Amino acid sequence: VSGIKAKIEEANQKTLDVLLRGQPVLVDIRPALEVVPGMTENMVLHSAPPIEWKRMCGPHRHGIAGAVVWEGLADTHDDAVSMIERGEILVEPCHHHDTVGAGAGITSATTPMLVVENKSYGNRAYSCLSEGGGLQLIKWGSYDEKIAENLTWQANVLRPVLQAAVLSAGGVDVKSIIAKAVQMGDECHNRSIAASAVFFREIAPHLLNAHEDRNVVLSCTESLAASEHFFLHAIMAAAKAVLNPAKNIPYSTVVTAMARNGVEFGIQVSGLDDVWFTAPANDVDGLFFRSEWGPEDAAPDLGDSCITETIGLGGFIQAAAPTVQQYVQGSMQDAISNTNEMREICVGTNQEVQIPAMDFAGGPIGIDIRKVVKTRIAPLIDTAITHKDHGLIGAGQVRAPLECFDKAIKAFSSKYSAG
Amino acid sequence: VSGIKAKIEEANQKTLDVLLRGQPVLVDIRPALEVVPGMTENMVLHSAPPIEWKRMCGPHRHGIAGAVVWEGLADTHDDAVSMIERGEILVEPCHHHDTVGAGAGITSATTPMLVVENKSYGNRAYSCLSEGGGLQLIKWGSYDEKIAENLTWQANVLRPVLQAAVLSAGGVDVKSIIAKAVQMGDECHNRSIAASAVFFREIAPHLLNAHEDRNVVLSCTESLAASEHFFLHAIMAAAKAVLNPAKNIPYSTVVTAMARNGVEFGIQVSGLDDVWFTAPANDVDGLFFRSEWGPEDAAPDLGDSCITETIGLGGFIQAAAPTVQQYVQGSMQDAISNTNEMREICVGTNQEVQIPAMDFAGGPIGIDIRKVVKTRIAPLIDTAITHKDHGLIGAGQVRAPLECFDKAIKAFSSKYSAG
Repeated sequence: VSGIKAKIEEANQKTLDVLLRGQPVLVDIRPALEVVPGMTENMVLHSAPPIEWKRMCGPHRHGIAGAVVWEGLADTHDDAVSMIERGEILVEPCHHHDTVGAGAGITSATTPMLVVENKSYGNRAYSCLSEGGGLQLIKWGSYDEKIAENLTWQANVLRPVLQAAVLSAGGVDVKSIIAKAVQMGDECHNRSIAASAVFFREIAPHLLNAHEDRNVVLSCTESLAASEHFFLHAIMAAAKAVLNPAKNIPYSTVVTAMARNGVEFGIQVSGLDDVWFTAPANDVDGLFFRSEWGPEDAAPDLGDSCITETIGLGGFIQAAAPTVQQYVQGSMQDAISNTNEMREICVGTNQEVQIPAMDFAGGPIGIDIRKVVKTRIAPLIDTAITHKDHGLIGAGQVRAPLECFDKAIKAFSSKYSAG
Repeated sequence: VSGIKAKIEEANQKTLDVLLRGQPVLVDIRPALEVVPGMTENMVLHSAPPIEWKRMCGPHRHGIAGAVVWEGLADTHDDAVSMIERGEILVEPCHHHDTVGAGAGITSATTPMLVVENKSYGNRAYSCLSEGGGLQLIKWGSYDEKIAENLTWQANVLRPVLQAAVLSAGGVDVKSIIAKAVQMGDECHNRSIAASAVFFREIAPHLLNAHEDRNVVLSCTESLAASEHFFLHAIMAAAKAVLNPAKNIPYSTVVTAMARNGVEFGIQVSGLDDVWFTAPANDVDGLFFRSEWGPEDAAPDLGDSCITETIGLGGFIQAAAPTVQQYVQGSMQDAISNTNEMREICVGTNQEVQIPAMDFAGGPIGIDIRKVVKTRIAPLIDTAITHKDHGLIGAGQVRAPLECFDKAIKAFSSKYSAG
């Protein structure tokens, strides 16, 4: 047994090392079909873990059907649903394509993708563009003409302009922006306003010559200037790019993915191949944006965005972003306690994510399933609240279900005791 | 006596009300000669309080002479000094012209000025543009060809472009940017990176059509994007614009100006006309940016920038900006203690400046000379450290001398006991 323990410790240190060495850089903006591995014209991706169409939550069903219509594969929502049911549309999790999607995670062939390269390992990961503000977005499973118009504008106008700007900038260092944003009150999940502002400051001069028509440049500049969550999607792609090289390290008990499909919560573990260990998703505790909305309107926990917690951001560094406590009526002391609690389930500390209110202590990073199972402390996730049909209705925080970790540790024991 | 006390309380509440009602908006960018009251072609302004040329500190002497050369009034530094000594150049404090200047505060006829209007009272105040980064700037009393070139570019190129952008934006709400920046780790004196980023996000779209030549737009956009202290100067002008209507309220013991000329520290008090109460300026405690620099190289406390503390920013809300503690090896707890200490000498709380790490408590505002004298707690100021000759060499914090407040309370007793 002690032999296994030493192997686990060594493997976890190696995993931690991979996470800390990651150098994610936004290098391009391309249509999904051109860059996302395995993407096809008749495929729609959604937030993980995998789930059959008939068991999907409202935001997934609405959003996926919406994407089928937006891509011109069907004329109506009902036609889209029929095609999906007949298997003419392939429906797969983003995570199976090196992609992460916020909320419903709807990603189709034409979707403009942020391409983030982990310069230390050469791998790439992807996430769609933020659609800007608003409660009705395809990201939240909503779809109508106005949403379609914005998606088409993003694909046809914003994508090539932003691509030209990113190429002109020689790429944008996501890790450096995360470090700066954490000094500016972002935890980089529910709050990425500072990251978005720092990114905008870096990219704005490069937008100027990104298109001949000044009005086009103006519309893109205005869109990016107004988008307070824009950079969250780049941070998500960066997290995935940092985590992928940490997969498949034998004996490692470190979590390499966490994701929610509105029905189930799933985790992947480095030493356990690409298996999803799932359990029913919890309800999100938080603030509803309108008085008519309450817990009974909400879908359970949804989205790939907790890839940020998987690299030690979001709920893991609440102490960096006291403003996020306003969603849960929490205090600064709650935020600090939560961050300290997350330290108990992590394998290391990320000195490049310094928390100002904790005298610049580094944030916890690398969730160890052994520690979760032993302490019964579940990862804390900052997240949005989605309506059970579709649309954004609130924001707050949620715990990962302990059952996922219990299943994973059992699988770990089976795999490595047998070996 | 109790009659006087009631009058003071009433006057102080009235003063506080004026401070809280202030609505500073950046409305224009104009050459000093066109907008600064009393400005003439042969005048150079400097940071207050008033001081004769021969007693001035190095940064003032160098900077003022530099401005005379830059304006084309003299060919050389020595010629400029002769003109100043002969009285052909008028040398006056910024504060006497509704103006505030960071560091040496050098402001001459051609200097491009941020024009901030207090919409609640209709008055205007002014501050020069930030020259961008670097240790050698006229703001720090330095002057050479490179500095002159940048000043000329700012006056001829940046000023009209930024003016057009500000007019196109219909003005920029400084109060709102301060509120956002405090949520993003700025205390708005030593740290204004978030304020500058939020301002940039607001103004960037308006820069696009501010000039026909794209290269001009590009150079201005790049300059503003790179300038991490840009918005401090707007915040300073805003502070002055908010404080001016609070002047000359009979019986008010609230401070309406604090300023340092590198030799003396001076304060003005609402109920005491425009009298400066002065005492020798203290040395700044802090971090020197190069190992060869130490306290013996530094000029004493210098600049009008502590107008920010006079409206409850900077050192008064250190708890909002733990990063600033890094200059003084302080902790988060030190920052919170300092903010709590400043509450003891203030007349009120500004609910629009919410400190995240203190569960969004409002910041203290309105320094009461009675409370300073009684508690012996001197206002705490975040500030730069200037070389005794010229140039920026560090940053840290400093206390206002208690002697200024003792003199003021004595004058107050004389004035109002007699009345």
